[in-house]
Amino acid sequence: MPVGTAGAVKGISPEQLKETGADIILANTYHLLIRPGVDVVETLGGLHKLMAWDGPILTDSGGYQVFSLSGLTKVNDDGVEFSSHVDGAKIYLNAETATEIQNRLGADIIMCLDECAPSGAGTEQLRKTVERTIRWAERCKEAHSNSKQMLFAIVQGGINPELRTHCACELIKLDFDGYAIGGLSVGEEHEDMIQTVADTTQVLPKEKPRYLMGVGRPIDIIAAVKAGIDMFDCVLPTRNGRNAYAFTENGPIRLRNNAHITDTGPIEADCDCSCCRNFSRGTLRHFFNIGEMLGPILVSLHNLRFYQRLMAKIRELIEKNEFAEWSAEQKNGC
Amino acid sequence: MPVGTAGAVKGISPEQLKETGADIILANTYHLLIRPGVDVVETLGGLHKLMAWDGPILTDSGGYQVFSLSGLTKVNDDGVEFSSHVDGAKIYLNAETATEIQNRLGADIIMCLDECAPSGAGTEQLRKTVERTIRWAERCKEAHSNSKQMLFAIVQGGINPELRTHCACELIKLDFDGYAIGGLSVGEEHEDMIQTVADTTQVLPKEKPRYLMGVGRPIDIIAAVKAGIDMFDCVLPTRNGRNAYAFTENGPIRLRNNAHITDTGPIEADCDCSCCRNFSRGTLRHFFNIGEMLGPILVSLHNLRFYQRLMAKIRELIEKNEFAEWSAEQKNGC
Repeated sequence: MPVGTAGAVKGISPEQLKETGADIILANTYHLLIRPGVDVVETLGGLHKLMAWDGPILTDSGGYQVFSLSGLTKVNDDGVEFSSHVDGAKIYLNAETATEIQNRLGADIIMCLDECAPSGAGTEQLRKTVERTIRWAERCKEAHSNSKQMLFAIVQGGINPELRTHCACELIKLDFDGYAIGGLSVGEEHEDMIQTVADTTQVLPKEKPRYLMGVGRPIDIIAAVKAGIDMFDCVLPTRNGRNAYAFTENGPIRLRNNAHITDTGPIEADCDCSCCRNFSRGTLRHFFNIGEMLGPILVSLHNLRFYQRLMAKIRELIEKNEFAEWSAEQKNGC
Repeated sequence: MPVGTAGAVKGISPEQLKETGADIILANTYHLLIRPGVDVVETLGGLHKLMAWDGPILTDSGGYQVFSLSGLTKVNDDGVEFSSHVDGAKIYLNAETATEIQNRLGADIIMCLDECAPSGAGTEQLRKTVERTIRWAERCKEAHSNSKQMLFAIVQGGINPELRTHCACELIKLDFDGYAIGGLSVGEEHEDMIQTVADTTQVLPKEKPRYLMGVGRPIDIIAAVKAGIDMFDCVLPTRNGRNAYAFTENGPIRLRNNAHITDTGPIEADCDCSCCRNFSRGTLRHFFNIGEMLGPILVSLHNLRFYQRLMAKIRELIEKNEFAEWSAEQKNGC
């Protein structure tokens, strides 16, 4: 899922986004709550109308951003008070309000409010966030009032296998439409992340979607699919694209480098994206050099297409029963 | 002609540009000369390849930007020395080098180097720039070595009808592929500009294109067509678009205004552009409010389409012999 933080995948029109092969996109409840606010989104016709996207949309619960972006976070068993990163306004979010907000935003898949432990949290603190996450999920399910939306729960527990399994099992008892794994890709080692994913997917029901939040690099995605994951969201294709970092099958290319000044080839010779069909690396390097916004846009488009091609290839290999063999050979850490 | 200053219409992909109805686009020799430089443009396959535009392209001669943007300009009868506005590097441009640069950039229409008098110049100074402009045009024609390109001359002379007519007549004797009127829309009154245009077109040959450079607002364009102009370039649709200023048949809309926060309508109800088909004024206002680049892009697209629709309507009215009547009723000064 490309990330459309505050109602737009930065700089990308819905037509361009569709052309990358994207089916479903993600929007951030936290950002939309701050600006333009839920009332405004509702008045403007809901999130699909705001984003001009007629495909599925998933909204996160806001929990992750509250803990990572906002100031002065106070959390207790009921919910969390935080200050807007824009104007400092105090906002209170709990299971009921996070659900109501998402019910009103109108995405197709919404997420339970969860608590992310700070990185380096000890076992006792982790256990506390897991217990809160389970209780909040139960309350979210109770509060959920829009039957057109699927509700996913989020498994927490750091890289502690016992806590992850416990959290997953308790959430499964509550019977959600899908299960996400949150609180990973926050600084832990790749191997620890994948081990945690594997520990968790072992207990998750096979017939429900499994979603690894905020991941990741191609190498992370391939390993996580192997560990049983179906869905991902990540800002890397767009954020890196805006910073002149292009993903390719042979590793990353940094388009600001002088090496590309007179480079007449596209980012990837066999890529079918509108950037690679039309523009040379030399032109892209020129656009970044002069601050032309078409540079960030075009490389975002390439990277989004790169990720969509990667996922399409993975699906094809799984169908052909060739994924395990192929994935063992992949070393592209870009 | 939309303006693609340094090889891109800011933020707009070639596919999006085509969808606005644009046939021909303009690029600035001065900007391309500074960055990425003529050698690089040539190595990357020329201007059409750089801009990924297979339709016609026109390059200006660089004269206007040299006099308006660069520092420490020294001008003599041969040419002009100036400092790059980017790094201060000294650059020398005369009739021969301006033509050679444009020959190598590879646009379909190129312009003679001209001298623009500073605004408020007296008659003697104006006369001097006119004489230089004529001599430089003669030398440009002599130097022009790419037979695939049309070469247009530029008429100068401030708002002095005698000097304009003199300049035009001398240039016509040299027989160019088309004639432009330069040095207008630089602060003079609308009526003075249109009178000067009318004085000049009176002597220009009917069978050659007449191009009014850097103009302008819809009201200027309508009056200039009435005065005999065929071609225009202007940054207003894109520059204003990037600043949340949208052109409509009922006058301008400023999309940052709070009045649009919950405005569910498009910029113009009967506009067929991708912005109006997909996004409400409320969403656009939100995008500008949060600094989302899709705001500037979408309003640029609307404004470019607005201008293309205006020009298409003018052409249609001329064919039907209804333009004079219609233009007398137009009061949209936006």
